[in-house]
Amino acid sequence: MGNHVWVRFPPPAPLNPARPVKFCSHCGQPVTLRTPEGDHLPRHVCEACGTIHYQNPKLVVGCVPEYEGRILLCRRAIEPRHGYWTIPAGFMENGETTQDGARRESREEALAEVEIGTLLAVVHVLHADQVHVMFRARLPEPRFGAGAESLEVMLCEESAIPWQDIAFRSVDFALRRYFEDRRRGLEEHHFTSLDYRRRTT
Amino acid sequence: MGNHVWVRFPPPAPLNPARPVKFCSHCGQPVTLRTPEGDHLPRHVCEACGTIHYQNPKLVVGCVPEYEGRILLCRRAIEPRHGYWTIPAGFMENGETTQDGARRESREEALAEVEIGTLLAVVHVLHADQVHVMFRARLPEPRFGAGAESLEVMLCEESAIPWQDIAFRSVDFALRRYFEDRRRGLEEHHFTSLDYRRRTT
Repeated sequence: MGNHVWVRFPPPAPLNPARPVKFCSHCGQPVTLRTPEGDHLPRHVCEACGTIHYQNPKLVVGCVPEYEGRILLCRRAIEPRHGYWTIPAGFMENGETTQDGARRESREEALAEVEIGTLLAVVHVLHADQVHVMFRARLPEPRFGAGAESLEVMLCEESAIPWQDIAFRSVDFALRRYFEDRRRGLEEHHFTSLDYRRRTT
Repeated sequence: MGNHVWVRFPPPAPLNPARPVKFCSHCGQPVTLRTPEGDHLPRHVCEACGTIHYQNPKLVVGCVPEYEGRILLCRRAIEPRHGYWTIPAGFMENGETTQDGARRESREEALAEVEIGTLLAVVHVLHADQVHVMFRARLPEPRFGAGAESLEVMLCEESAIPWQDIAFRSVDFALRRYFEDRRRGLEEHHFTSLDYRRRTT
């Protein structure tokens, strides 16, 4: 058994928006942290109105859009990882499917209308309480541009991918699996987990 | 363009625990509903401390455990759909993978230690703001029993599945794809969407 230190990479602040629940969002009274009857985990419970405030992982949805062999990448205009490269991706909204969300993020971040294809990657980002779901996608026309959250957007050959400047490890994972599968003529899906909550020293 | 009526099936109350956000969970002040600058959707915003309270879909994770050709089913001891049959499934918790969650639910609801296999189904339950992720699974030994949330648990041949008494449409979808694929000797994954928010009359 070693010691554990908390390592955070990338900085989780805006990616993990969970702030401590101190007050009931329903009635405004202070909450307590306890395990409700019949449950097995501590929850934020409002003793005034009885509401239990569950916290669950959030879904991030994205895609790898391809046009004539090249991949659409966006350079981030926002934190975290400002200035680093990523694929179109973001938090899934209520009322949409995972594919809808990936399409919407392509529109918002890259001003691109993509056709979502097969499932590429599911990444459990345990240190951020997120599940990243990435699809293959097709960009039918080379029309794109920098949305409000992007500094620039480019179509990029595999040999020119800026691997040292990819914003997130989940994106690195998705891109590597994308190119490996493409080389083999396959479209498989790939699960993995990232966990920077603690590291044994 | 027809008229829209709101149809709710199954009853979404406990499945969709989202209650209206009236107060800031961080500082306890009343929130307002508005679109923050740079955003495109209305959010619950605390004008006192600046916190934006996003609401996102929740993940439900489950599996279809098989033992010598038979499937493990649980009869629900809780609402919604008390007395109806389902597979082990429930809300994913922070700090676990989707596979971890499916394994945990099998333990809790069916007192069964399963080995999670391939991805079977992803169901967007749009009326409940949920994404259901179901896996194939193997029950290595016929050891199981009714957990606190189950009335009874059984191993069931395909020909004996109580199709009329399956608790949720997402479970019906997962089971049908499971048997179809098994007959064809395949293990594919299947996406679908359910939307009972409104129906054109």
